Amino acid sequence: MQLDAIVQDLLGRQDEIVDRLCAFLRMPSVSTDPAFPEGMRDAQTFLLDWLKHMGLIDVQLLDGGGHPAVYAAWNGAPSKPTILIYGHYDVMPPDPLDEWVSPPFEPTIRDGKLYARGASDVKGPTIIALYAVEAFLRLRGNCPVNIKIFLEGEEESGSASLCEIVRRHGPLLAADGMISADGGRLSPAFPTINVGCRGVVEIECSIRTADKDLHSGRYGGAIRNAAHEMARIIASLHHEDGAIAIPGLLPAPPSVSVDARAETARFPFDDAAFVKDVGGRAHGEHGFSIREQLTLRPALDVNGIWGGYTGLGSKTVIPSTAHAKLSVRTVPGQDPIQVSSALKIHLRAVCPPDVELAIADLVAGSRAFNLPTGHPLVLAAKKVLSEATGQEPVFVRLGSSIPITAMFQEMLGVHTLMFGFALPDEDIHAPNEFFRLASLAEGLSAWSRLLELIGEHTAHEFRSMATAAEKALV
Amino acid sequence: MQLDAIVQDLLGRQDEIVDRLCAFLRMPSVSTDPAFPEGMRDAQTFLLDWLKHMGLIDVQLLDGGGHPAVYAAWNGAPSKPTILIYGHYDVMPPDPLDEWVSPPFEPTIRDGKLYARGASDVKGPTIIALYAVEAFLRLRGNCPVNIKIFLEGEEESGSASLCEIVRRHGPLLAADGMISADGGRLSPAFPTINVGCRGVVEIECSIRTADKDLHSGRYGGAIRNAAHEMARIIASLHHEDGAIAIPGLLPAPPSVSVDARAETARFPFDDAAFVKDVGGRAHGEHGFSIREQLTLRPALDVNGIWGGYTGLGSKTVIPSTAHAKLSVRTVPGQDPIQVSSALKIHLRAVCPPDVELAIADLVAGSRAFNLPTGHPLVLAAKKVLSEATGQEPVFVRLGSSIPITAMFQEMLGVHTLMFGFALPDEDIHAPNEFFRLASLAEGLSAWSRLLELIGEHTAHEFRSMATAAEKALV
Repeated sequence: MQLDAIVQDLLGRQDEIVDRLCAFLRMPSVSTDPAFPEGMRDAQTFLLDWLKHMGLIDVQLLDGGGHPAVYAAWNGAPSKPTILIYGHYDVMPPDPLDEWVSPPFEPTIRDGKLYARGASDVKGPTIIALYAVEAFLRLRGNCPVNIKIFLEGEEESGSASLCEIVRRHGPLLAADGMISADGGRLSPAFPTINVGCRGVVEIECSIRTADKDLHSGRYGGAIRNAAHEMARIIASLHHEDGAIAIPGLLPAPPSVSVDARAETARFPFDDAAFVKDVGGRAHGEHGFSIREQLTLRPALDVNGIWGGYTGLGSKTVIPSTAHAKLSVRTVPGQDPIQVSSALKIHLRAVCPPDVELAIADLVAGSRAFNLPTGHPLVLAAKKVLSEATGQEPVFVRLGSSIPITAMFQEMLGVHTLMFGFALPDEDIHAPNEFFRLASLAEGLSAWSRLLELIGEHTAHEFRSMATAAEKALV
Repeated sequence: MQLDAIVQDLLGRQDEIVDRLCAFLRMPSVSTDPAFPEGMRDAQTFLLDWLKHMGLIDVQLLDGGGHPAVYAAWNGAPSKPTILIYGHYDVMPPDPLDEWVSPPFEPTIRDGKLYARGASDVKGPTIIALYAVEAFLRLRGNCPVNIKIFLEGEEESGSASLCEIVRRHGPLLAADGMISADGGRLSPAFPTINVGCRGVVEIECSIRTADKDLHSGRYGGAIRNAAHEMARIIASLHHEDGAIAIPGLLPAPPSVSVDARAETARFPFDDAAFVKDVGGRAHGEHGFSIREQLTLRPALDVNGIWGGYTGLGSKTVIPSTAHAKLSVRTVPGQDPIQVSSALKIHLRAVCPPDVELAIADLVAGSRAFNLPTGHPLVLAAKKVLSEATGQEPVFVRLGSSIPITAMFQEMLGVHTLMFGFALPDEDIHAPNEFFRLASLAEGLSAWSRLLELIGEHTAHEFRSMATAAEKALV
């Protein structure tokens, strides 16, 4: 069957596809909070059953000690490249619950948008990839390339056991390249191809200034207050302009190349609208554009801070403990271990010596990622997107982190093309996350065409092209 | 009946007294949190029933729009002074619940200590005062002085409607002096008389930097983070040594008199033990002793701070809001309204102009209090304590606040003697609050003797002495 007929079939089955996506979204597969074991199990079972039904083989959970990944394969094209398809079935916690217009795990369509936790990040884009494979197998009986599907269960909790999964199950994951359903588009107006993303390092910092919370009348004015000390520590992390004030945490100069800045400038970006859309306040390192601040420079953020009485009304205590969750988004050239170490050294240096300080790693750090623009996956994506939109795709970098990209490159030698169909305004990680139904159609067509195009190469050709592209990058 | 026989009777009924106190402590009368309406009502009913049963008249709730006060009177000694007895039936919230060894509202005796929320602050000391009155009425048929009992229901929530209660019910409260069961002893080793306390001002400060929490990958490095801004604001409140860094918030110099410092130094105070007992770290304004920092100088504390994700695991958001509860302990000479205003002006000045700042008054401020040492209530207390302990009582000031002292002085011209029997290590406002059973016996004896001694004066004599003492203070 011709590719066009396969695409038409998919586009005609959108109601079925939305129904299946909604079933998937109803499962509260929150990996970061141990309160959701059922949601995680339900999502695994849902995927295993469906992948088996599709006709894939080796369908199984890959265990690494944490939440397992879902795996499946199709090996029917021995001379063709083998493509690993990545997605994740876990989602962020839904809180604050009272800010959702419709409940986070009851998918609801309003104005062509499907609202639910995980709709955009990344169950919607994952369903697109799986349906492309399903359609080839059902209508044509085979795929243009060999397929390995790998759906992670801990992406939102920092991929804590991903490394161990890869270590244990490496041979199952051997491939010529990976296409990720995560890592979305940057604009609905023109095509982009992600050629990099920032890494992430996360820690939690806790301080203690007394054995217990103390009465502020009986002790106030004579004793340390953990909230004051934490505020001083946090205030020391940045300069006035928002730039990171910890020299050891910055990449070695010259950290940003002329080429990277020129490439970044090609992306048409409205600084004022970007800030205004979220009611935010622009605030960042002097000398860099917002896009550069977001993609070429590291960022250090407090993700949460707490200490003392935070309930209704008043309680005049002197907090004895205070806590902060901190994350660093790293850029290519930065080693996560070194970044984490520089941050910890700074925290220990600014914390008064008589204050107890404890620092815990929240997740395994992930390295920033760089994809060669001459890689056959990039060339195929460029062709698909050019034809679909009539525009030349712009190469862009993501500010956020897709830990698997750097890890698979390091551990399996596999490069990742991010080919997700989420859009940046879809409130991922926040209340009222949504996915545009229109993106489903665009994604189904693009994924089918992309797999077909890659299948025009033999495995040998594909590998030679990939090697050449990588050499050009270095 | 002789006073000694009355005291002996009380000391022989300790089991009954502890039982009644435990019944009172089982009622979760938390005034600061609207989740405890039943506990508040139960405590009111318990007191009303008991006071009626005792033979008091005019037993009623005094309403001021918030939690009402419990009131009762005895008017059988027309030529004698009229003494208002103050206590409060509300308690602090019990959280953090998981740090209590036995549940906060299940009174439990361990090692001669009665553990429960409110045991020390101030249901235990209140029960002592009420039993002294009960014993006179039951055994002698009359009291040495006229009695008005006033048990507040909002002391722990800043006495929000106390002013309105006094405004509405002023005539019921007319008296020659007040004795408070709140405001405890400072030492089990030697007698003290409280001749002052700090006032308190409480506000909540909230900032907003965006419409919603943002993904730290997509926005990190280019946009303001509410937790960073709040940390900078809090860090600006104090100098390095812990001294308040807001000039307008400090009392006008010379704020601390030579006499006050000498009086403070008379109190034998072990600085190192004070800090070590709570595992704290000494930290306060240079040039002042710890006792001076606690009683003669104002203190500014963050009582709670929060923003962003504070749950288990990680969630890489940029918080769009952050909050802090702030309290100032004020000293004599400071106007709470001016202090509150100076704090707000500072917060507005240090908050970046593009960050939304909202400040709410948490409770009505209370003024610091000064009791003349020649007041007949003080002279009577001095005699009672000298005889009971064989030691000359030391005049001391409290670091904490008893709002009613300043308010009753201003609105009703009534001075307050704090004659509570709590001790400072009893973990009030914290988990595992307790009251020593030994303090019950000491308190019952002292309160009976105090009322008897005051009753040796006619109302006229008492008033003349009070007026003379006040003049000496000015």
